[in-house]
Amino acid sequence: MSVIYDRVALIGLGLIASSMFWAMKRNGLAREVTGYARSAATRDAARRIGLCDHVCDTVAEAVKDADLVVLAIPVGVMGAVAAEIGPHLKPGATVTDVGSVKRDVIENVGPHIPETVHFVPGHPVAGTEHSGPDSGFAELFDNRWCLLTPPEGTDLTAVAELRRFWEGLGSNVEEMEADHHDLVLAVTSHAPHLIAYTMVGVADDLRRVTDSEVIQYSAAGFRDFTRIAASDPTMWRDVFLTNKDATLEILGRFTEELFALQRAIRTGDGAHLHDYFTRTRAIRRGIIEAGQDTAAPNFGRAQKPV
Amino acid sequence: MSVIYDRVALIGLGLIASSMFWAMKRNGLAREVTGYARSAATRDAARRIGLCDHVCDTVAEAVKDADLVVLAIPVGVMGAVAAEIGPHLKPGATVTDVGSVKRDVIENVGPHIPETVHFVPGHPVAGTEHSGPDSGFAELFDNRWCLLTPPEGTDLTAVAELRRFWEGLGSNVEEMEADHHDLVLAVTSHAPHLIAYTMVGVADDLRRVTDSEVIQYSAAGFRDFTRIAASDPTMWRDVFLTNKDATLEILGRFTEELFALQRAIRTGDGAHLHDYFTRTRAIRRGIIEAGQDTAAPNFGRAQKPV
Repeated sequence: MSVIYDRVALIGLGLIASSMFWAMKRNGLAREVTGYARSAATRDAARRIGLCDHVCDTVAEAVKDADLVVLAIPVGVMGAVAAEIGPHLKPGATVTDVGSVKRDVIENVGPHIPETVHFVPGHPVAGTEHSGPDSGFAELFDNRWCLLTPPEGTDLTAVAELRRFWEGLGSNVEEMEADHHDLVLAVTSHAPHLIAYTMVGVADDLRRVTDSEVIQYSAAGFRDFTRIAASDPTMWRDVFLTNKDATLEILGRFTEELFALQRAIRTGDGAHLHDYFTRTRAIRRGIIEAGQDTAAPNFGRAQKPV
Repeated sequence: MSVIYDRVALIGLGLIASSMFWAMKRNGLAREVTGYARSAATRDAARRIGLCDHVCDTVAEAVKDADLVVLAIPVGVMGAVAAEIGPHLKPGATVTDVGSVKRDVIENVGPHIPETVHFVPGHPVAGTEHSGPDSGFAELFDNRWCLLTPPEGTDLTAVAELRRFWEGLGSNVEEMEADHHDLVLAVTSHAPHLIAYTMVGVADDLRRVTDSEVIQYSAAGFRDFTRIAASDPTMWRDVFLTNKDATLEILGRFTEELFALQRAIRTGDGAHLHDYFTRTRAIRRGIIEAGQDTAAPNFGRAQKPV
């Protein structure tokens, strides 16, 4: 593949940015990649493992002359960082982000981007429960969706270029309206994360009574929840606070359904339960057919090579 | 390893029984294994793939002369099947089960077991989202817990023998009181499953509005939920109906916590959210240290061999 942006700046050096770096290097998408993280410890760690061609000590230095600037930081600080980099952006450059919430980012980042710079918000729907500069790997985005949510009037060439870039990183790219994005993600990601956090918290309370039994006998259900609930606390706090309305709406629907199932259990309505569980099983098949997971059984251990 | 039971009968030929068969063969734990399933299609499938040394057409024939009889069927039908096999059991034999609920099984199976036969209830805490005779594999129980819940007065030699058998299948074995088992499993498995089923059902409702988007953009959170919610509907209906009290108690605690987090989102209490998420992250580390999962990142695809 060929170079798409001559110089790329990664702001924030966590799971997403470090995976982007390794994927860019794998496919030769950028000639030079600079990086910046607010924490000196993170910058040192990045330098130690060769993450980025240059790790800069100031964000201004990192974005200087960059053709693409990627904000890969928690949604809650995007606005402040955009204000900081605004004056240092190269005319004609593109700024994008990787936040899980899009309306809030558009409102808080947009005003700080100069007229001469293109702002194309984005969201790679990919991740693991790990975080930090050493958690990235080049394959993270392969065959995963990256959603771009350019506001009306965004330069079409800039959008097309960013699309080619994400395709080069391995993603399938789709454009969508920001509010619609936030609702869909509330269902597929934000509400499930809050629910997993909640259940693991409940189990933790019980653990105080029964010592380590909850951990010891963590069957499939709970084990998967703990993986979800091990995700980065700061990132997720910001997601819930900035996608408040959609998340609360979905949680409302969830509670309604849960109460109906609880009543079916209490009244012994086995047919209701069986019908419901049969319906949800079919959704799984849809996901496998959509290529977003494999049919290989997962029981919490590294799988044998197929 | 050496033969522990001369003749073992597997009643029900799904994920657990088929995995037990392959693990028994791997380690030479039984000289001969018979099998029975109520459905002729399942019996045919078992014969086709060489599951069991003999697949019998009646349950009476399968348990005849067996030294160990394993009830590997949904909890809701255990009592009826126990009534059927009771008269055909060999004096001195052991009957066990693999149900996810133990108090209900003891109450419904126990009365049908003759005085001359030992009944030792058990629960291998292992599984995948797949079911049926071709879903089993020999490694399913390796380093997983198997919980035995023998009622007071159970023959100690029979318990010790069954323990050695499960250790031979690869499990770590622990004994526990049946009611305590049902509470611990309500937390680690039963409530998480119901919650996953609920969330996937909510998403399914939304899918009607937004076509295939929910499936297409199934990020990590939802994808894990769909795997859990793809589990066998009959098995899970029976689990909820027979472990009703403990499941409803845990769901009550869950709802309480969820409401507190929803309120934190609504009021913008970021500190509450961050503290909660930091606490749940620590539980994940405990599970990895307990050997019940690996630290390898999971992003829904077969992992590369390490």
